[in-house]
Formats: sequence, C-alpha cells, structure tokens
Amino acid sequence: MRVIGIDPGLAIVGYSIIDKINGENILFSSGSIQTDKSKTDASRLYEIESDMQTIIDKYKPNAASIEKLFYFKNQKTVIPVAEARGVILSVLEKNKIPIYEYTPIEVKQMITGYGRASKDEVAQIVKMSVKYKTMPKLDDTIDSIAIALCFSRNEINLEKLNV
Amino acid sequence: MRVIGIDPGLAIVGYSIIDKINGENILFSSGSIQTDKSKTDASRLYEIESDMQTIIDKYKPNAASIEKLFYFKNQKTVIPVAEARGVILSVLEKNKIPIYEYTPIEVKQMITGYGRASKDEVAQIVKMSVKYKTMPKLDDTIDSIAIALCFSRNEINLEKLNV
Repeated sequence: MRVIGIDPGLAIVGYSIIDKINGENILFSSGSIQTDKSKTDASRLYEIESDMQTIIDKYKPNAASIEKLFYFKNQKTVIPVAEARGVILSVLEKNKIPIYEYTPIEVKQMITGYGRASKDEVAQIVKMSVKYKTMPKLDDTIDSIAIALCFSRNEINLEKLNV
Repeated sequence: MRVIGIDPGLAIVGYSIIDKINGENILFSSGSIQTDKSKTDASRLYEIESDMQTIIDKYKPNAASIEKLFYFKNQKTVIPVAEARGVILSVLEKNKIPIYEYTPIEVKQMITGYGRASKDEVAQIVKMSVKYKTMPKLDDTIDSIAIALCFSRNEINLEKLNV
C-alpha cells in the first residue's frame, strides 16, 4: 500500500511517498515542486501539472492524501493555492487515484490530538511516526508527510481500497 | 483573429468564441461546461479540463481572455472557482495560447465605463457590441463574451499577437 501525501501551493508543492508495510509507515521518498515567481501563473500551474504526472508515473501511488483548503486560513494566498490544488486534483483524477482530503485543523488533530498544534509539534510527531533514512527539511514536505499519515493511519481507508 | 472568453467556475464555465473581422466583433459560438454537483470536485475538475481541451481543439483560438479572481468578491465560492480557474489556465498554457486576465471590476469598467455596473447593464452593452445570430441566455456565457471583448477591443493586444 503506497500513498502520496500532498501539500498544495503555487510556489511550492510538498509531496511524500509513504509505504505501509506490516503496519509500519515507511517514508520511501519525498520532495517538492518549486516554481519560479518570475513566470506567469499559467506557466507555473502547467509545470505543477507536468511534474505531478511525472511523480505519479514514477511512484505509482494507490491513493492520494491532500490538504483541503479553508478559506479563512489565509485570504491573500488562498486563490493561488486553490488554483494549484485544482490542477493537482485533476491530475490525480486523470490517473484514477482515489483522493482523501483533510483540512489543516484535521491534520493537526489527527497527528497530535490537538487542532491548534504548532508546526514544530506536528513535525516532531511526524518524525516519530514514520521510518525514514532522511527526513526532509522543507516545511511543506514535512506537512505532506503529516497529510499522508492522516490517510494511512486510518485502517478503514486501507480496507476500502482492498490493498 | 479569434479569442475565447472564459468565465470560470466549478459548476458552470461560460465560454464564447469571438472573431474580429474588419474591426467587427462577431460571436462565432458560445456555450458552457456544466458539471454535476453529485460528483467529486476532482472528477468535476477533470471534466472541465477535458471539455476545455475539446473546445480548444474545435475552435483553435489565437488568444484567451479569462476572469481573474478577487478574493473578497465572494469568500464562500472563491475556492472552488479558483480550483477550476487553475485547471483552465493549465490547459491554455499546455496549448500555448496567450492568456489575458481581467478582474470583474475591470470587465465592468471596460465594457460599460463604470466599475459598479449591474449584470443587466453589462449584458445590454455586450448585445450592442457583438454581431450574433443567437445571444446565449446563461449569465455565465454572456459574462464570457464581456470578458472576451475586454481583450478584443484593445488594439494593442491584437498588434502584440501579430494577427
């Protein structure tokens, strides 16, 4: 069972590939798509679409877990983030990958048991919850692991997918 | 010179195909992509992507004019509309179609000379500004004509594209 966790954004899309083997969550790979601020939004969005397709082709995840937006989280950045998220959802659908969505509060609640946990608190528990050779340093990539864990911790999700 | 005007949305994407011939704006075709509320957002977004590609293949526009979002326009619907807009921008970029963007206020200003014009006022001027056989009835489609006109009324845009 392999899930891709995705933290969407126009400037940075964090992603991680988590394998669930014998009940353990193993960080197989992780990284980010970073787009150039000097380019047009359309060109950055198409780059995200192309790169996401490459990542899916490479890792062939059985499911995707992606952050769901909350409009009052940050009004100024919500539009570009939503535009990037739309592109990512469409790529996942094109590849027939089942999609699971969690709001930032749900992610914090499910990972730390506390909906208002800090980024550091989430990162600490993420590091204890997965086996890894190298832990990424970028916040967005660590967030994508937390998002992936929301999915793969839930046995009901795994049963539904029959894997 | 052919421009596609696009009014983005998750439930309805209005579009119109405007040809500029001898200084006249001619409504060649228009319509809408309408997605089913009972489906997932990802599936609706992918439907928008596929249908936009079909429309581009059919009409081969030289340029695209699309509404740009303003986050305080309608906070509750801005996220799904932005997600749909992201998908549309990516399709346009993939097809190497130059993109021009106008906020709702700019559209009203450019069409009626008044940034707070009503939908009816915009629609009335749209009807006087294009030659047409049939005027669409759907608001979103009429809006897409107004958006297309913002582009095609501007001779500087046409010169830049060398058409």
